[in-house]
Amino acid sequence: MNKKIVIAIDAMGGENAPNKNIEGIALFIKNNQNKNDYFFNIFGDKEKILKEVKKYNFSENLFEIFHSSTIVSDDETPLTAIKSSKDSSMWNSINSQITINSDISLSAGNTGVLFVISRMLLKTIDTVSRPALAGLWPNKKNMNVVLDLGANVECDDVNLVDFAEMGSALYKSLFPDDVAKVALLNIGSEEIKGTETLKKAYTKLKDISAYGDFEFNGFIEGNKITDGASNVIVTDGFTGNIALKTAEGTAKFITDSLKESLTETVLSKISIIFSYFALKKFKSKLDPRKFNGAIFLGLKGPVVKSHGSTDAVGFYHSIDLCYRIIKGDLMNKIKSNLSHASDKR
Amino acid sequence: MNKKIVIAIDAMGGENAPNKNIEGIALFIKNNQNKNDYFFNIFGDKEKILKEVKKYNFSENLFEIFHSSTIVSDDETPLTAIKSSKDSSMWNSINSQITINSDISLSAGNTGVLFVISRMLLKTIDTVSRPALAGLWPNKKNMNVVLDLGANVECDDVNLVDFAEMGSALYKSLFPDDVAKVALLNIGSEEIKGTETLKKAYTKLKDISAYGDFEFNGFIEGNKITDGASNVIVTDGFTGNIALKTAEGTAKFITDSLKESLTETVLSKISIIFSYFALKKFKSKLDPRKFNGAIFLGLKGPVVKSHGSTDAVGFYHSIDLCYRIIKGDLMNKIKSNLSHASDKR
Repeated sequence: MNKKIVIAIDAMGGENAPNKNIEGIALFIKNNQNKNDYFFNIFGDKEKILKEVKKYNFSENLFEIFHSSTIVSDDETPLTAIKSSKDSSMWNSINSQITINSDISLSAGNTGVLFVISRMLLKTIDTVSRPALAGLWPNKKNMNVVLDLGANVECDDVNLVDFAEMGSALYKSLFPDDVAKVALLNIGSEEIKGTETLKKAYTKLKDISAYGDFEFNGFIEGNKITDGASNVIVTDGFTGNIALKTAEGTAKFITDSLKESLTETVLSKISIIFSYFALKKFKSKLDPRKFNGAIFLGLKGPVVKSHGSTDAVGFYHSIDLCYRIIKGDLMNKIKSNLSHASDKR
Repeated sequence: MNKKIVIAIDAMGGENAPNKNIEGIALFIKNNQNKNDYFFNIFGDKEKILKEVKKYNFSENLFEIFHSSTIVSDDETPLTAIKSSKDSSMWNSINSQITINSDISLSAGNTGVLFVISRMLLKTIDTVSRPALAGLWPNKKNMNVVLDLGANVECDDVNLVDFAEMGSALYKSLFPDDVAKVALLNIGSEEIKGTETLKKAYTKLKDISAYGDFEFNGFIEGNKITDGASNVIVTDGFTGNIALKTAEGTAKFITDSLKESLTETVLSKISIIFSYFALKKFKSKLDPRKFNGAIFLGLKGPVVKSHGSTDAVGFYHSIDLCYRIIKGDLMNKIKSNLSHASDKR
């Protein structure tokens, strides 16, 4: 029998923890009843966790609880985190990738602290110039991987090339039957557009795409991110963060306006009865909980960050992401891809 | 009697020119019948323009046509533009701000060429470090001015401060009864976040806000652009362009998904009958034609760029923008604001 996929869960991170975290695990187990290839190491307040676990009647073969007495607060800054977060549920969860058998960690806690602890405990892969934060983003055909989303405010061309290789590895882990198609986010699609860094990265990526880790689609503008022609969108952390948050803000602005319009008059309220299923499907397609989970790439072990404010369904989607990342053999794919990137430095 | 507001129109720029350009003028005249304070200098193929003008039966007191024999093509690059675009409708339109009495120019033609010609003919204001491209963006309360949208790929803190002062001048020209509230686009709202350039600009803007040209709201994240707490969003041209286009792409992606859902089943199609007015209102509120028009700020005369692909209604909104810019005394407001910025350099 193959080794099980072991997911370390920080049960205490995020709003409404550990309730939503444990309910998220319950949803995963419910949706994967026919599988026997996963196991959870759950970290946090043992008593509270047990109380939640009992609600769902998990099989004992599926999990183990490890007591952690402290929790990383949302106010903690990365500067003091290393000292004060030792032995917290977050710390112990990540550390279990080294000390015991966890393949991947998931936390909905403080992002900055999670990044610092992960980097310190797991260490950066030797051939990676900089680790990056990758996210999922809906597109017309399926889903994009977008990186970096804020881990590196300024990036050079070597970093961008590494991001392209790591993003492609992630895409192929999640969608093994699909081709990774890389594009560099820029303010025009012509080769002469943008910063010197982007132009250099363009030339290198064109070269490296010969290895076949990804197709290279050149530059892409912000309005083409969702059109599905490319599925690995590469950018520096500043631009990626602005783009992601602007898209989130725009989506909220539009759906709020729609809601307002549809509930304004009696007639429009009646229309909701008829369009109920259509609107439900529309809402479900763009449900941000389906895209919940940012992935730290470039460390010697993978770490996933769930939105702190998401609910059990969102947390479930992050768990599912962890499962697919390990099932898709992300770490070996990253190593293989990066050997091509460093060949060309 | 006060001097009339004289708007120079490049009638040959953009798709479906000169038809949409002249129809746009007709819409403006129709909506401003009670006013007697504006005049159009129209540049382009005289015969074609006259043919269109006759359709709408304009009063002869409202316009003059100036024949231009050539047109700047969309394929023209800014590099060769100066030589080859001389005496084009675009060139003559901008030049009329110097040679005759035009207060402002409007074109829906080639953006890069328009920028180069405008800069060469009108020249940069002495106290401006760099001209910028500003756009309008809906927010929950009203409208944002966002700049730079792509004229300057890289910017320093002095540029960003100038953008804040010019953006505030534009905002106050368009909305004289409102207060300009400046925010710097960043990846976090805390003072310590972002690049060194942004931190320096932050300190300077905090200082300069004492002059009262604007309130300074500090850093803003991408998801807060539309919430209305700030209305002058300042950023470098690379980031601004990415943010604008990402927002456009997201808006299109969501409204396309909605359309798809609402036309999928018979039941949902029936719902459209009931929600017709609500959906129409929703659509109208976010109609991009209402926000059509990017403004070149920092030159000795103002120039407005309409989207090339917009229709007569979109072009009308750009004309209205030109009218309000001059009515609001933009140029003097810019000069006054900039004197405060240069005081603090």
